[in-house]
Amino acid sequence: MFNEKFLDRVVVVLVRARNPSNIGAVARAMHDFGFRHLRVVNEFVVPFEAAKSAVDASAVLAAAQSYDNVAAAVADCTLVVGTTAVGERVLQHPLQALPEAAAGMLGHLARETEKGLVALLFGSEKTGLSNEELSHCGSLLTIPMEEHEELRHPSMNLGQAVAVCLYELVRTAGLELDPALLRGPSPAGMAEVERVALLLNDLLEKGGYKRHHPANSEVEDIRRLVVRMGLTATDVPVWMGIVRQLLWSISQTK
Amino acid sequence: MFNEKFLDRVVVVLVRARNPSNIGAVARAMHDFGFRHLRVVNEFVVPFEAAKSAVDASAVLAAAQSYDNVAAAVADCTLVVGTTAVGERVLQHPLQALPEAAAGMLGHLARETEKGLVALLFGSEKTGLSNEELSHCGSLLTIPMEEHEELRHPSMNLGQAVAVCLYELVRTAGLELDPALLRGPSPAGMAEVERVALLLNDLLEKGGYKRHHPANSEVEDIRRLVVRMGLTATDVPVWMGIVRQLLWSISQTK
Repeated sequence: MFNEKFLDRVVVVLVRARNPSNIGAVARAMHDFGFRHLRVVNEFVVPFEAAKSAVDASAVLAAAQSYDNVAAAVADCTLVVGTTAVGERVLQHPLQALPEAAAGMLGHLARETEKGLVALLFGSEKTGLSNEELSHCGSLLTIPMEEHEELRHPSMNLGQAVAVCLYELVRTAGLELDPALLRGPSPAGMAEVERVALLLNDLLEKGGYKRHHPANSEVEDIRRLVVRMGLTATDVPVWMGIVRQLLWSISQTK
Repeated sequence: MFNEKFLDRVVVVLVRARNPSNIGAVARAMHDFGFRHLRVVNEFVVPFEAAKSAVDASAVLAAAQSYDNVAAAVADCTLVVGTTAVGERVLQHPLQALPEAAAGMLGHLARETEKGLVALLFGSEKTGLSNEELSHCGSLLTIPMEEHEELRHPSMNLGQAVAVCLYELVRTAGLELDPALLRGPSPAGMAEVERVALLLNDLLEKGGYKRHHPANSEVEDIRRLVVRMGLTATDVPVWMGIVRQLLWSISQTK
């Protein structure tokens, strides 16, 4: 069996949610399925404060935490999974259907000995997750939906989407765990991964790569490359050492 | 594979939904997952009309039908599945978790040669389904949720509950179908089952059973007994013949 205690290490992150009642609906779905960790990333504090002060605000909402940006919200996580409606944009990530993604998240938690967290990111009601926000995600999931010609609802209602994802996690947690999932090294924390990405970004800047390849070398492009490497905890110092060495070499040539 | 065309024979029935925006949210979830048949049972026409006239009313809502009572709303169905939050009341039905219930509904549709419909009933936001309403249900499903001591949310948000159930039906429809599910006779239509129940009710009235057992012989108790018999199409005339014969016998003794 998947151990249901794993579910307490799942963090729901709402990025730029605009509607306070949607934030409240998400908190309610989390409460219903037994999830406790809600994080809200917003430049403007208004929707979050309004949701928190609503009459029926739940314990989940009361304990929710606010962040300025995605990197800070996922720093203590070891896996970040973004959610998207298919067709929202050209995807630069491998896309998994929800059942496969839920099994992957639980497998990750099962073999993660460091007790890191898994983040599940939901974008704003109107636009979903931006490319910058997606660059923090190691994988993307989509809820299988009916395709309609008119495309009137390109994405699900936010509260409903969260409810469906959490239901699938709870359902999957009741299934038998493939012991093979338990093998393998511990993944690196996202704060460390971000350090590698930023140092690599610095290297590519100083090494002239960015100047020669401006189309694909924004910091979010570099981050996406690094996040998708699936670094283990022991990989991080190795890569940091490699990049630092290269930075030093380049500094000597000037 | 379960054939996905079966999903077009699933009918969502909202009983005494009070909030027009909840009815709209249900229609949106149905649209997202490709379900088309929404029925609304309400004594008062107000919430339904308000939902229909909302700016973003969907095609599902525009095509929704209104009924005065549950019996009329499910008359052309061959299986009626009620939804409940565990602990809502003492249950007089076998209770299935959603994954099992979804597999049962799809199996029923797969072996149902008469093209009858399967109804999925949701009660009012405040009280769920009443005992009378539950008496029309052949089985009950519950969405596995976390138990909280305070029981602040005894049931899920209506739109979220519908979204989770429909997601599970779509997910299950993608799984492999056990060929054993395809064997067996066609189930009876609910209109026929209701005829058997009402005739049996008449028999128990005239036969003195109700007078001697007043606690468990309301029409809804009788209906529950009959619905749970799982009558096949060929059972119905047999039972109608039996009950009619007994009614005739009793009328002769007076």
